[in-house]
Amino acid sequence: MTLEQSVNIGGHAEDGRVAIVGGGPAGSLLALALAQRGYDVDVYERRSDPRTQIAGGGRSINLGLSKRGMQALHMVGLLNHVLQRAVIMRGRAIHSLDGTVRFQPYGKNTAEVLHSVDRNELNRMLLEEAERFPSVKLHFEHRLVRADKELQELEFDAAGQGIKASPRWVIGADGAFSTMRRELQHGERAEYHQEFLEWGYKELTLPAGRDGGSMIELTALHLWPRSHCLIVSHPNLDGSHTLTLFLPFEGEDSFASSRTAADVEALFTKYFPDLVPLLPGLVEQWMRHSPASLITTRTAPWVFGDWAVLVGDACHAVYPFYGQGMNSAFEDCSVLVQALGESHGNRAAAFQAYQLARRAHTDVLCELSKTNFVELRQKVRSPWFLARKRLDLAIHRLWPQAWIPLYTMIAHTTIPYAEALARARRQDRILLFWSALLALVTVGASVVYALGR
Amino acid sequence: MTLEQSVNIGGHAEDGRVAIVGGGPAGSLLALALAQRGYDVDVYERRSDPRTQIAGGGRSINLGLSKRGMQALHMVGLLNHVLQRAVIMRGRAIHSLDGTVRFQPYGKNTAEVLHSVDRNELNRMLLEEAERFPSVKLHFEHRLVRADKELQELEFDAAGQGIKASPRWVIGADGAFSTMRRELQHGERAEYHQEFLEWGYKELTLPAGRDGGSMIELTALHLWPRSHCLIVSHPNLDGSHTLTLFLPFEGEDSFASSRTAADVEALFTKYFPDLVPLLPGLVEQWMRHSPASLITTRTAPWVFGDWAVLVGDACHAVYPFYGQGMNSAFEDCSVLVQALGESHGNRAAAFQAYQLARRAHTDVLCELSKTNFVELRQKVRSPWFLARKRLDLAIHRLWPQAWIPLYTMIAHTTIPYAEALARARRQDRILLFWSALLALVTVGASVVYALGR
Repeated sequence: MTLEQSVNIGGHAEDGRVAIVGGGPAGSLLALALAQRGYDVDVYERRSDPRTQIAGGGRSINLGLSKRGMQALHMVGLLNHVLQRAVIMRGRAIHSLDGTVRFQPYGKNTAEVLHSVDRNELNRMLLEEAERFPSVKLHFEHRLVRADKELQELEFDAAGQGIKASPRWVIGADGAFSTMRRELQHGERAEYHQEFLEWGYKELTLPAGRDGGSMIELTALHLWPRSHCLIVSHPNLDGSHTLTLFLPFEGEDSFASSRTAADVEALFTKYFPDLVPLLPGLVEQWMRHSPASLITTRTAPWVFGDWAVLVGDACHAVYPFYGQGMNSAFEDCSVLVQALGESHGNRAAAFQAYQLARRAHTDVLCELSKTNFVELRQKVRSPWFLARKRLDLAIHRLWPQAWIPLYTMIAHTTIPYAEALARARRQDRILLFWSALLALVTVGASVVYALGR
Repeated sequence: MTLEQSVNIGGHAEDGRVAIVGGGPAGSLLALALAQRGYDVDVYERRSDPRTQIAGGGRSINLGLSKRGMQALHMVGLLNHVLQRAVIMRGRAIHSLDGTVRFQPYGKNTAEVLHSVDRNELNRMLLEEAERFPSVKLHFEHRLVRADKELQELEFDAAGQGIKASPRWVIGADGAFSTMRRELQHGERAEYHQEFLEWGYKELTLPAGRDGGSMIELTALHLWPRSHCLIVSHPNLDGSHTLTLFLPFEGEDSFASSRTAADVEALFTKYFPDLVPLLPGLVEQWMRHSPASLITTRTAPWVFGDWAVLVGDACHAVYPFYGQGMNSAFEDCSVLVQALGESHGNRAAAFQAYQLARRAHTDVLCELSKTNFVELRQKVRSPWFLARKRLDLAIHRLWPQAWIPLYTMIAHTTIPYAEALARARRQDRILLFWSALLALVTVGASVVYALGR
């Protein structure tokens, strides 16, 4: 980092430290980015240090790192390091009930791929890098209990002891059930929308074969789409795959109805017969954890004067079905760091610019994450959907700049989400117009031909 | 109450008491209704006893009691008593900027009127009646701090002292910022939507004349609709009127821009010149309270096993623009009491039936309360809207059962809100069809006439 860079950023020169509440991927990436720009940073994390313990498991979906997330990792200089520990996913491998597998590539070239990364490993790498800076202090097992905007004070519970901090300013990166958001929005005219899916999820491991090789195609995101349930799997470097089963909480063939070993085996035999021989420890794995739930949140404000700002799930939790949860949180980090850099010391203005640049787009992502739930379960099996997808990719090959399929824009570009959706709708209308015209011409020609006979 | 009635109700025969958290109109009406049916009831209210103090003022909009609220008061035998203390409002008196006043009657007959009641007085009457029952205990200055579904326990803060209660079951009637809702929904997959209006409100009093008579028409709801702000007024028995000014919080001509006496006077001179001579103490009144905010909430679940249930604002706060906030809360009370009476002791089923009967309708009311904000400010001034309203009422006179204007259904019937809206949309489509047909016939006739010349 050069001196000019650090002078530009406006803030690091101030007295006092920056507090980041939440040491997950977004919080630790921000700690690293701010330290690189000369800030003194305290990270407060509710859980214990993920580097000193066995991964919790059962609660975090494996990540499909795409363009937006990669850009943020590039910003902190860690992209290559992370990609070395990732497995490329070239497309979706779709498993039918009858055992046939169909492959849909993600894009037209080798750059348009996703990277499967282990969330916990990514988190550890980011914490490791952040901690190299003497200006960064990590405080684990610190649970936020109070944040006071007026007094500009935080209070934590650390093993039963109350600990206070008076940071210069604060970032809330403490996830979908954010205590920072609740505390900061207290007394504000805040908008808040929270919805849960009637489906939960459970993680299962599909182990590598005896030779250490993958039992199914390694470099793909595997899907077992059923209208009643869904499995998505991400590959790991060791040849295993992390499967996430999505299933209704209640009703027939649900988590509630799958309590015994026989129930679980019957469920898999009915919906995923090809997986049964590949999952020897299925029942034991199943019983280990209760299913986790899926929440979306949309809210405002994200910004509280020049003292506090929210990022990631703390202000916009989405369903995992577009694979954009962490990618969008990382994009928040890029935009926030850039806004601070361009603010000439006016932090309130930087915070405002950040919320303005992000909120409309993360609201759209929330909707996309809901509609993609239907796409992943049902549409990927429809011949019409597949034909449409092929046509989209074919036109994209002809005019790579002018015509980009929606999924490509979301995963492989940094076009803001709302713009991507607007462009995709325009493309839909154009396709509809030409299809209608083509149909009309065909009918017209047939009539002329019939009359001419 | 006869013995048969009380036996039917299923619940009063149980051991243990019913706790009602919140002693506002809905909570006190429920206390009375349950006591009449043989239940033992504790009411816990955060504030002090409204009967022993001067009304707080500045925070509660005067109420327009309509059919749904009247039905609940009839259930507890208090309707006539309340109506004796109410002022009839026969329609809307609309004040233009130039000082002209136009009167729009609410309905086709004298039964279709609203009744202006003082919220605090209504609350006091209900508490008074409830307290006549030895089985009812009122606990004021008891602030709920914790509700535990598992332990079936409540904890209150009463003047710094922690007080616990273990009621048989609980009703949460503690308003839009309900602590009961928050505590009960903890750990549930709860849906929750909260929005604030960018406008706030302030109450002002238009005093009676020196002779004790009203300075403006007494038996009307007065409206001063402006696109930028709005005053609604309810008459009081003493000839005064309670005015509620709705104004944006921020921007030009807002609460933020009206801080000095000169600002306030300029605001009224610009938008409400006819009110200036009628409000001698305007500036003093203005300065007394800060503006209050307006919230809507939609949420689920309202019901927690057989232990707890939410009513009124605690589960569906709406904007006051349809005058249905308290009316819909009272309707909750009627439906809940009826469901308990028909449950044959199965309280969980009664709670479920209550939520099923109400939630879809209060969600619709939430939308109606938002759209009526636009109607009150803008549409009431449009000649097209007025013509449409007259046509609606004219058809209603011809076919009083088959054709009922939306406002009439909401205010003067107990047709469930969602059904009322669906019927109104059907009526809209019929009107559109006949208008289009009429236009077509007119054009056709003109063409035939022109060609025939």
